[in-house]
Amino acid sequence: MYIQFWVYFIYDKRLHEKEMVGLTYAMIGTWRMAYEGLAKALTDLQNGGSSNDAVETAIKEVEDYPFFKSVGYGGLPNAQGLVEMDSAFMDGDTFAIGAVAGISDIKNPISVARKLSHEHFNSFLVGTGATQYAMANAFEARNMLTERARKIWAKRLREISEKNLSPYDGHDTVGVISLDQNNSMAVGTSTSGLFMKKPGRTGDSALSGNGFYVDSEIGGAAATGLGEDLMKGCLSYEIVRLMGTGLTPQQACDQAVYPFVDKLKQRYGKAGEFSLVALNNQGEWGIATNVEFTFAVGTEKQETQVYMANPGPQHTTLIKPVSREWLTAYAKRIKAPID
Amino acid sequence: MYIQFWVYFIYDKRLHEKEMVGLTYAMIGTWRMAYEGLAKALTDLQNGGSSNDAVETAIKEVEDYPFFKSVGYGGLPNAQGLVEMDSAFMDGDTFAIGAVAGISDIKNPISVARKLSHEHFNSFLVGTGATQYAMANAFEARNMLTERARKIWAKRLREISEKNLSPYDGHDTVGVISLDQNNSMAVGTSTSGLFMKKPGRTGDSALSGNGFYVDSEIGGAAATGLGEDLMKGCLSYEIVRLMGTGLTPQQACDQAVYPFVDKLKQRYGKAGEFSLVALNNQGEWGIATNVEFTFAVGTEKQETQVYMANPGPQHTTLIKPVSREWLTAYAKRIKAPID
Repeated sequence: MYIQFWVYFIYDKRLHEKEMVGLTYAMIGTWRMAYEGLAKALTDLQNGGSSNDAVETAIKEVEDYPFFKSVGYGGLPNAQGLVEMDSAFMDGDTFAIGAVAGISDIKNPISVARKLSHEHFNSFLVGTGATQYAMANAFEARNMLTERARKIWAKRLREISEKNLSPYDGHDTVGVISLDQNNSMAVGTSTSGLFMKKPGRTGDSALSGNGFYVDSEIGGAAATGLGEDLMKGCLSYEIVRLMGTGLTPQQACDQAVYPFVDKLKQRYGKAGEFSLVALNNQGEWGIATNVEFTFAVGTEKQETQVYMANPGPQHTTLIKPVSREWLTAYAKRIKAPID
Repeated sequence: MYIQFWVYFIYDKRLHEKEMVGLTYAMIGTWRMAYEGLAKALTDLQNGGSSNDAVETAIKEVEDYPFFKSVGYGGLPNAQGLVEMDSAFMDGDTFAIGAVAGISDIKNPISVARKLSHEHFNSFLVGTGATQYAMANAFEARNMLTERARKIWAKRLREISEKNLSPYDGHDTVGVISLDQNNSMAVGTSTSGLFMKKPGRTGDSALSGNGFYVDSEIGGAAATGLGEDLMKGCLSYEIVRLMGTGLTPQQACDQAVYPFVDKLKQRYGKAGEFSLVALNNQGEWGIATNVEFTFAVGTEKQETQVYMANPGPQHTTLIKPVSREWLTAYAKRIKAPID
């Protein structure tokens, strides 16, 4: 039995190295908002850049853009008007993880998470401890609340009291997975979390196996949606595990996500919105979602493009490129005046 | 294919209901410290109590005892001398999860986590947000730092500076899994985390799939050890998943944990201390650990008892009851004067 296993391992290793000859690179990111960051980081990958750098580059781009209202600068605040953010970084070669939850006043949470991934102890910091760590390590401070986000928050407060609306709405995490020409993979996430959340609320984005997971010998996955429900299923870990059994990223996404959504409806009585993206170490990708969901992908063979996914029949996913009209309407919508 | 799956499901369900006729109950908890809480909660289970109540009862007992220095009152503080705690609660019937990370000044974090598990939004709170939530919901406040813990902290500070020691030591989470006579399961965790941690540091204990996971149709698992490394593997989820494929809890623990420890050494270069406990919905249990590890178990057939586990040859676990001498020495050690 021992001998048999060893022989298999040798064989597998050689096969793996053979496949690695065809060096390639690829990135996938959640939502339309990942597009510009991905395009920029893919140029770096093309020039031999690392997955670790590419993930940070792509996510910083999203964090810095003021009109994406669920990540970084311009992100929507909590019930008290403070922008509290969650972010994580994972290196698929070493499994090193860094994460922050409930960090505030810091320009780039993803950079803090990446730096923390180099620590063997104290690599996941929450609340004021996370913010103080970032300040003490000379990360750039910024008031992350834009005037636009403050207006949206104030308007929502009025609607909640006047129309008796549920306060909670919007929870779009940017999650980015990267494969570089050295066959190294990485994943990162960043979000300002649930709009109007209670102070200190965190979701799945900083939680390993839930919001993200990556193993360079297999592939990676990342999640966006209602973190409170996503963490009931460990779906990012499960997708990577399934890819490790030989499934394509699309098969792994379909088989991990849709049965779990059914199970959650049966056992918990309901299921929030879920969208998962996956990329394997051959540059193949997949999606599963129970709601209309946009994402961006770029590979060596395929220029960066925005797609739209929807749940299809019998636990499948329908995917099509978004139209020029959709993109134009999106660009207009995110900058529309707030009354 | 669809029909085939459905037939299998019906068959499985009937088998399951048949097995459920033999109503039983059981609990397992990490470390010697779980013993008294388990003994108390098992009496409740015997009288028809619920797993959810049993988990809270058992963990409160550990949180309240001042001489357990890694959980609740008497827990060792962070680098600044503040006791910051992590706790989670999961209902195996519904997958409902509540969690807190970096909470302070609250007598029973497990009760806060359990209450949060009833919320669909904002069920995981960190830092001062978690503490404020607990205060606003009338949970009992307490300065969790005992004079004894303060002395240990001050002594350690001296040793770190005089002997150039690594500051980080001790990270024993109490993790408790329960099965009740209605075949409902629950899991809970509570810890003051890594001794001398940076403010805001959290580990695996509050992270679903990492520190805990439970599905009443299968079983549950909980972890203790170096959270920074445990979260690289999603081991609690993986153990439950493996039990779901038909493995016994012991087989699932061995197969999930030991190969991952090997992989982590190979890929990350080292592996911290890990210990995992598992219980299935037949009342069978299992353990895996890469270090000497005590735990407590009680079932309908077997009175509550403390055992010791050690890693065995070829990915196995050696388990034996602890001796009377060991228990006496333990009781003396945890109350020994601090110089």
